[in-house]
Amino acid sequence: MKKDVVIIGASDVGISAALRIRELDQSIKPLVIADNKFPNFSICGIPFFIGGEVKKSSNLAHRKEKDLKNAGMELLLETKVEKVVPDEKKIIAVNNKGTQEIYYDNLVLGTGGVNIEPAISGLELPEVFFMRWMDDAISFDNFIKENQPQKAAVIGGGYVGLEMADALKKRGLEVTVLEFMDSVLTTVNPRFRKLIKDKLENEGIEVILNTEVKNIEKIESGLKISGSNDLKLKVDTAVVSVGTKPNSFLAEGTELAINERGAFKVNKKMQTSIKDIYAGGDCAETLDFLTENYRYYALGTVAHKHGRIIGSNICGKESYFDGSIGTQSIKLFDQVISRTGLNEKEAEEAGFDPISTEITADDHKAYYPPAYKTYIKVIADKDSRQIIGAQILGSYHAEISKRIDIFAAAIYNQMTVEKFSQLDLSYTPPLSSPWDPVQKAVQQLELEF
Amino acid sequence: MKKDVVIIGASDVGISAALRIRELDQSIKPLVIADNKFPNFSICGIPFFIGGEVKKSSNLAHRKEKDLKNAGMELLLETKVEKVVPDEKKIIAVNNKGTQEIYYDNLVLGTGGVNIEPAISGLELPEVFFMRWMDDAISFDNFIKENQPQKAAVIGGGYVGLEMADALKKRGLEVTVLEFMDSVLTTVNPRFRKLIKDKLENEGIEVILNTEVKNIEKIESGLKISGSNDLKLKVDTAVVSVGTKPNSFLAEGTELAINERGAFKVNKKMQTSIKDIYAGGDCAETLDFLTENYRYYALGTVAHKHGRIIGSNICGKESYFDGSIGTQSIKLFDQVISRTGLNEKEAEEAGFDPISTEITADDHKAYYPPAYKTYIKVIADKDSRQIIGAQILGSYHAEISKRIDIFAAAIYNQMTVEKFSQLDLSYTPPLSSPWDPVQKAVQQLELEF
Repeated sequence: MKKDVVIIGASDVGISAALRIRELDQSIKPLVIADNKFPNFSICGIPFFIGGEVKKSSNLAHRKEKDLKNAGMELLLETKVEKVVPDEKKIIAVNNKGTQEIYYDNLVLGTGGVNIEPAISGLELPEVFFMRWMDDAISFDNFIKENQPQKAAVIGGGYVGLEMADALKKRGLEVTVLEFMDSVLTTVNPRFRKLIKDKLENEGIEVILNTEVKNIEKIESGLKISGSNDLKLKVDTAVVSVGTKPNSFLAEGTELAINERGAFKVNKKMQTSIKDIYAGGDCAETLDFLTENYRYYALGTVAHKHGRIIGSNICGKESYFDGSIGTQSIKLFDQVISRTGLNEKEAEEAGFDPISTEITADDHKAYYPPAYKTYIKVIADKDSRQIIGAQILGSYHAEISKRIDIFAAAIYNQMTVEKFSQLDLSYTPPLSSPWDPVQKAVQQLELEF
Repeated sequence: MKKDVVIIGASDVGISAALRIRELDQSIKPLVIADNKFPNFSICGIPFFIGGEVKKSSNLAHRKEKDLKNAGMELLLETKVEKVVPDEKKIIAVNNKGTQEIYYDNLVLGTGGVNIEPAISGLELPEVFFMRWMDDAISFDNFIKENQPQKAAVIGGGYVGLEMADALKKRGLEVTVLEFMDSVLTTVNPRFRKLIKDKLENEGIEVILNTEVKNIEKIESGLKISGSNDLKLKVDTAVVSVGTKPNSFLAEGTELAINERGAFKVNKKMQTSIKDIYAGGDCAETLDFLTENYRYYALGTVAHKHGRIIGSNICGKESYFDGSIGTQSIKLFDQVISRTGLNEKEAEEAGFDPISTEITADDHKAYYPPAYKTYIKVIADKDSRQIIGAQILGSYHAEISKRIDIFAAAIYNQMTVEKFSQLDLSYTPPLSSPWDPVQKAVQQLELEF
């Protein structure tokens, strides 16, 4: 079988690439191959499904299978690609009907990430779950329905771990978060970490820091988790979420270059080291806009950008990825925490001379109640005076996730602290101030140069 | 009396300039003169006070009098400046204690705007109100309390008129909006105008278009309003809001240049035609960023920028106003309407070759209910491919006013439609999509080039 474009992986990169191709060139009918039966599902939505805010797992589909077909792509599901043979421009795919060789003109690797498995014994127990793909979510949901666990441990206090803690609490479980480091969400600044921990505890979640989980064992009444600092915790189920690493096993036996972390090396056109093979998303490295280094960001937004750029380049519309600045938002209970750009440590490591400030400001005029107290941290580089990072924490109702995007736009456009005050941002008393809080923060920072 | 800095007007420009001066040079103690007793009040908040969402008029103070004094400015209230004598660098001020001459090194004109008075007979009736300053608001509030009017007419369907219609409805009155043009809020695109009119009508507000009010007369039971199209309307009170013109009477007898609209002419440093005299806000003209023409924007955000730049320049920190792009948001009931940059007509008039698109998109992933349908219009210039305008309409909960700011930042940074897709905007399913709706709109526009 021969195809113009073969795409391995039907998640963000794969589907974005296929949609872009169809947008630009209707003569190409990309073949998208997935090892599961859930093409184009929003895996970022899994915690909300577990928490019950999303009623059915099928709701998590960005598009339904028939929409994808109608959009002009061909789907080959529940099919595992075992090998890429670049010299012959073919792949070898296996499913329950057998093995087939598929030849390609262009190949897209969107194989995603795999779970980092910490050195904990007992991860294979049926009460222990990783939470990455739809299969994981559906299994865990079924487990909860059938076994009605009362107590859960979440191992890992990063983005997904905290979303899962929130979800399980909403689902009615008692939840303990276990974190190896000295705080949850270490990507944000210390003040925010403390506020988040306080929030989790106020919501009834136990947070245990500085503690390494070493062992999970089955006991009569559930699981016993033990580890450093005399950790001894009895729970009914555990979710492990300690990070993502690239799924790049297809590099084996090829000249496909991978970096020291195992991610496919790519250039700005998202081309791998082998002609006509592209890669993007969680299986590939990501150019960092500010440092011009390659980093590893496992983010849906980045994967969508990669996919679109791959689609453009395959269709001959030259397109370059300018880089990510790591913009992320997370909703926990009624709070939102957003970040973009570098934190101080990252900035120093990248050779910047960071200067920063933190302010507390109402999201809008306090005379129009309720106004929400909002914490804003901004970081600039002393020499260039450019804004290089920002973090905001506050109410779900305080438009925080789109306020961080004002910073994201400023960073991308290399705006200085002075120029930021020139931005003509919108104001009406129920929604902002004549100087938006983001500008107040930068004006405060300007004084500290 | 001699002062380093004399500021006429204690609203946005005056206080912003004074605060900036104090920030940069504590040796200067600016004298701020106001013809009223409400320094630094948020007149943008007046409709929310009338509507009852702001409980006391005093809440509308951005800062209290003592805060202003503590910040290091001197206040001279209820004092009218009658004349500026630039040759002698002095002003003549009158209050109930008499007349005084005050000499200045630097003078700031922040005299604001005055109401445009349409050619309607009866505007002087005590049941007819303009709504600009705190005195107006307090008088109207007292009038409502004392007379308990049942029916109100709002003459003028612009921003303030519609906010007042919303407010009076919340206050329990029956409301009719009377508009001379063929739609309300003519600064936004036709589809939005229609949606806004429908919204007002759904909320029980009568909207009468294409109708010129000519006469308001007192009748036994209230007011009779008549005009073109056989308009005959009985109400108990009327609010007139047909626009703002600059309050520049201090130009009389001086060489202070004013433009054809009566606004003080200024350069990018906010200097008038006379040395050491600055002007900003509603009494001055405003540089338009996109067209590089001077326009008239009566906006608090612009006035704050002007004031800050004036303060910087007075203190010797050279500062230039890059221009406004007319970003505005309005909340009407549970809807927000935002705009930034040019609409198509303005773009054509300014010599651009506009191309536009409109999309409807959920503000965030629909699987996390409730998602809100959001209308987005984007306008770009065909030659430069730069985004030059955007408008968004939708729910109060859809972060619309900060989404328009992403466009505002893009326009200020002269981003092309292609570059806009590179923006690393934040995503979490309860608050956005992997491509934020603003990016979806621009990607749609890109296809239409």
